[in-house]
Amino acid sequence: MQFEITREYVEQLKKLIEDKNTKEVETLMEPLHPADIAEIMEGLNIDQARYIILLLDGETASDVLVEIPENDRKRLLKELPPDFIASKLIEFMDSDDAADVVADLDEDRKKEVLNEIEDFEQAGDIVDLLEYEEDTAGGIMAKELVKVNENWTVATCLKEISRQAEEVGEIYYIYVIDDTEKLKGVLSLKKLITTNTNTKISNVYNAEIKMVNTNVRKEEIAEIMDKYNLVAIPVVDEIGRLKGRITFDDVIDFIREEAEKDYQMVSGLTGDVEPGDKVFTLMRARLPWLLIGLFGGVLGSLVLGSHENQLSKATELAFFIPLIAATAGNVGVQSSAIVVQSIASGVKEFETIGKRLLKELMVAMATATIFAVLIFAYNFFSSGNMDLTFSVSISLFIVIIFASIFGTVVPLFLNRVKIDPALATGPFITTSNDIIGLSIYLLIARMFFGIL
Amino acid sequence: MQFEITREYVEQLKKLIEDKNTKEVETLMEPLHPADIAEIMEGLNIDQARYIILLLDGETASDVLVEIPENDRKRLLKELPPDFIASKLIEFMDSDDAADVVADLDEDRKKEVLNEIEDFEQAGDIVDLLEYEEDTAGGIMAKELVKVNENWTVATCLKEISRQAEEVGEIYYIYVIDDTEKLKGVLSLKKLITTNTNTKISNVYNAEIKMVNTNVRKEEIAEIMDKYNLVAIPVVDEIGRLKGRITFDDVIDFIREEAEKDYQMVSGLTGDVEPGDKVFTLMRARLPWLLIGLFGGVLGSLVLGSHENQLSKATELAFFIPLIAATAGNVGVQSSAIVVQSIASGVKEFETIGKRLLKELMVAMATATIFAVLIFAYNFFSSGNMDLTFSVSISLFIVIIFASIFGTVVPLFLNRVKIDPALATGPFITTSNDIIGLSIYLLIARMFFGIL
Repeated sequence: MQFEITREYVEQLKKLIEDKNTKEVETLMEPLHPADIAEIMEGLNIDQARYIILLLDGETASDVLVEIPENDRKRLLKELPPDFIASKLIEFMDSDDAADVVADLDEDRKKEVLNEIEDFEQAGDIVDLLEYEEDTAGGIMAKELVKVNENWTVATCLKEISRQAEEVGEIYYIYVIDDTEKLKGVLSLKKLITTNTNTKISNVYNAEIKMVNTNVRKEEIAEIMDKYNLVAIPVVDEIGRLKGRITFDDVIDFIREEAEKDYQMVSGLTGDVEPGDKVFTLMRARLPWLLIGLFGGVLGSLVLGSHENQLSKATELAFFIPLIAATAGNVGVQSSAIVVQSIASGVKEFETIGKRLLKELMVAMATATIFAVLIFAYNFFSSGNMDLTFSVSISLFIVIIFASIFGTVVPLFLNRVKIDPALATGPFITTSNDIIGLSIYLLIARMFFGIL
Repeated sequence: MQFEITREYVEQLKKLIEDKNTKEVETLMEPLHPADIAEIMEGLNIDQARYIILLLDGETASDVLVEIPENDRKRLLKELPPDFIASKLIEFMDSDDAADVVADLDEDRKKEVLNEIEDFEQAGDIVDLLEYEEDTAGGIMAKELVKVNENWTVATCLKEISRQAEEVGEIYYIYVIDDTEKLKGVLSLKKLITTNTNTKISNVYNAEIKMVNTNVRKEEIAEIMDKYNLVAIPVVDEIGRLKGRITFDDVIDFIREEAEKDYQMVSGLTGDVEPGDKVFTLMRARLPWLLIGLFGGVLGSLVLGSHENQLSKATELAFFIPLIAATAGNVGVQSSAIVVQSIASGVKEFETIGKRLLKELMVAMATATIFAVLIFAYNFFSSGNMDLTFSVSISLFIVIIFASIFGTVVPLFLNRVKIDPALATGPFITTSNDIIGLSIYLLIARMFFGIL
């Protein structure tokens, strides 16, 4: 039912591009949706991508450009002439996408492109949007929307909507304003169609409307739209005047990106990488955290080295180093991840921090007891060395409780001081837990073995 | 702008519920949106939640129930009388939500509730929907939609839509069918409003429409709707007849759930838990993977134990156990996470598996070289023990390459055999990497130190 892009298709396309066989390339791309073309572009090099985008009609080219990942888009824009960007790309874009494109250009080219835009009103909209901070409602909203005055009749509205609708991709809601442009409420197309044409709008619109101020942050917008299942949300300024709207597709992308960021953090990556990325890109995303791990490993070796005497006299102590370190890391990441996820989901917690820590402590105590008993039984029956048996069990017990509390407190603290709490699931905490866990283990062992 | 739910508010509500002060509870909840009530319900116990839901009018109660997390909903439904479920909840729900509710009931109650539904057509819709598999388009679609015949005029359509729209929450698209109910295309309300009323629908509808078959899986639906930015997608049967539609809010929830699942996997949790959950629930989500880690730790101790002689004669070897184990784990998780994320994002890879492995190998070689050199320099200058210096460096080099390849191959393999590739980021692989890494380390060391 859907057009399936195969590897063969892409290979064929690449070959035709190399041959500069414009006709055949056009025929091959004829049945494609802009989103499909964008997907294919990710597999092309910059020259091939440039060739394709210059070939497409403005409508398609602009849709394709919007769908390309930001980094690729930036690189591609650098390769395109300003008049092409203005007249073939921006011309066909909604103001939010157009502003994103202009923001991606460097200062000189930005001015050039803005001056090349024929529609002066559109250029004005873009400049207005660029004023807002990037991650706020103002920075992501589009200016295109359908609005009607509360004093109009349904008949006037229908006529006005036909006129306004030309510039708007999809109408999800019709916004109702008063004479001062203040947002009063919302009207669905459904309501409009099912209402008598002589009725005044002020009698039929829905005044219970969710809206956001221009300076509300992306996270909060996504939360509101997700919670109340909104296809679009209107954006107003400080005195309630309607300024733009944000649609669900922006929110879907944002939710996905946020989830990906948390996922990358916990798996030790510093960027959004694909297996197909360049070796250098992959290295750049992977090295930072591995290096922190390396540093932690060296610190760990110093901790162990400071107990050399003990380890050399009781070698069996070394056997349980991986167990202690791994458990400390695992428990810590779990605790942090639970907190991070609950913050990210935006679900309000009605319990106090004290209560939550108490609960975490109970979970930790129960887990620690189970683990201590299990490893005690194992060591008791397998080695019979009571010093070792007690050392490992007691250390494991303490380490689990410590890592739980540490893993819970750190993300809560980071969130309180406005740092991304997901950082707690990253390598710093895991590495700290490892090292602290090992220290606890060797200190406990010293008490039992009595070696100095 | 938004009603803010505070801890004090919830405490006050709880107190009023305990006092059975129905009037005050109603006043307190008056300004709330169903989604807000659902959020508050998560903080209530089952009796309090039951009290609230029985108090609400049908429209609100049904909206609240739809917004409650599935597990809570199941528990709450058990506490409600069948006639209440049928006449106050299901009555006001769209067919997809109603089917979800009925599916949550156990067999006896299911029949009872279905028979209590007054609207026979609605009961029929629910029974029809229950036939489809849960995670397919049929299982998540709603029957409510607006459809028009291609032979009608715009004027007839507008009248028909007014009639049909009563049962549909939001009209996003109007579906155009032929006399055999076959889906021909789509029409936007915007188009309808802006077209002359005498025009025949067949002349104005858009035939280029994305649709899915009833048996298409959720993952694929989410991918298509996200890729093409669709608010809703129609569902058709094998011979193309229009059966229902799926809307964007279902997809947002699904994307979020999938991302959460992957996140839980990599952070060692087996369920979606919140810090506020019961101790038992938290334990159940945390213990399984910690226990696998415990088992891995014991295996690790056996591996180290089998090299006891070596470790007792060269204690300094033990110092680098945490470094080797941690690096093996970190590199493996990174490699797996990159593959898992690329599979989850649904972005097509146009490279062959051979090429991807070659790239992974190049990244691994470069990383391994950097790490081997760094740790060589560190050990050379800090200890000067050349046996140790060579052992650690060479082991680290081999371990990084092994963990990279292992971490890349396993999720690719799991995906090929239709197992969730995210499993690779879980504890099995990390634990395996730890143990294999340690074995490599001790075998290499044996070559240098020559101890048996």
